[in-house]
Amino acid sequence: MDCQEIMKRITTHRGVKQLVIINKDGLPLKTFPESEELDESQVQSLHELAGAARRMVRDVDPTDDLMFLRVCSKTDEILLSPGKNSVHSHNCEGSLP
Amino acid sequence: MDCQEIMKRITTHRGVKQLVIINKDGLPLKTFPESEELDESQVQSLHELAGAARRMVRDVDPTDDLMFLRVCSKTDEILLSPGKNSVHSHNCEGSLP
Repeated sequence: MDCQEIMKRITTHRGVKQLVIINKDGLPLKTFPESEELDESQVQSLHELAGAARRMVRDVDPTDDLMFLRVCSKTDEILLSPGKNSVHSHNCEGSLP
Repeated sequence: MDCQEIMKRITTHRGVKQLVIINKDGLPLKTFPESEELDESQVQSLHELAGAARRMVRDVDPTDDLMFLRVCSKTDEILLSPGKNSVHSHNCEGSLP
């Protein structure tokens, strides 16, 4: 499955507002909606949060690794899925099921 | 429901390995199992991660707030629930349902 297909699969889920794929240096590679301007400080915050979570997991067990991060706020949910060279994050409406 | 009852309710869930309640300065107030020695750097990492997630949520929308944080690793899951003056975190076996 290529990147476009994966992005389509995620962004057609009900409630998905935004999707961003960030490289290992914290720079956005792909975004949805494409037209929307990205807030660079928010992308940087996402990148730093994923890094902090990964360090925490590895502190507990150096053989373990971060697989998924879910941040729930009052109105939204941010899901982060780290890859080898990138992090993809999507922001959905609603709270935990 | 008092703190002991809430702790009991959480720690009797299947797969719960550890529970820690941290105050707003990052110091552990209560732990389960009580006998187990806490790694202070891990508690500090949890505290910092919750702070970073809260900042990120408020950056996006200053009227919003962090409600829940879920960190999934290959083998474990760390759940963080921030309160006004404390954060409680529990570590469970297994991955996302």
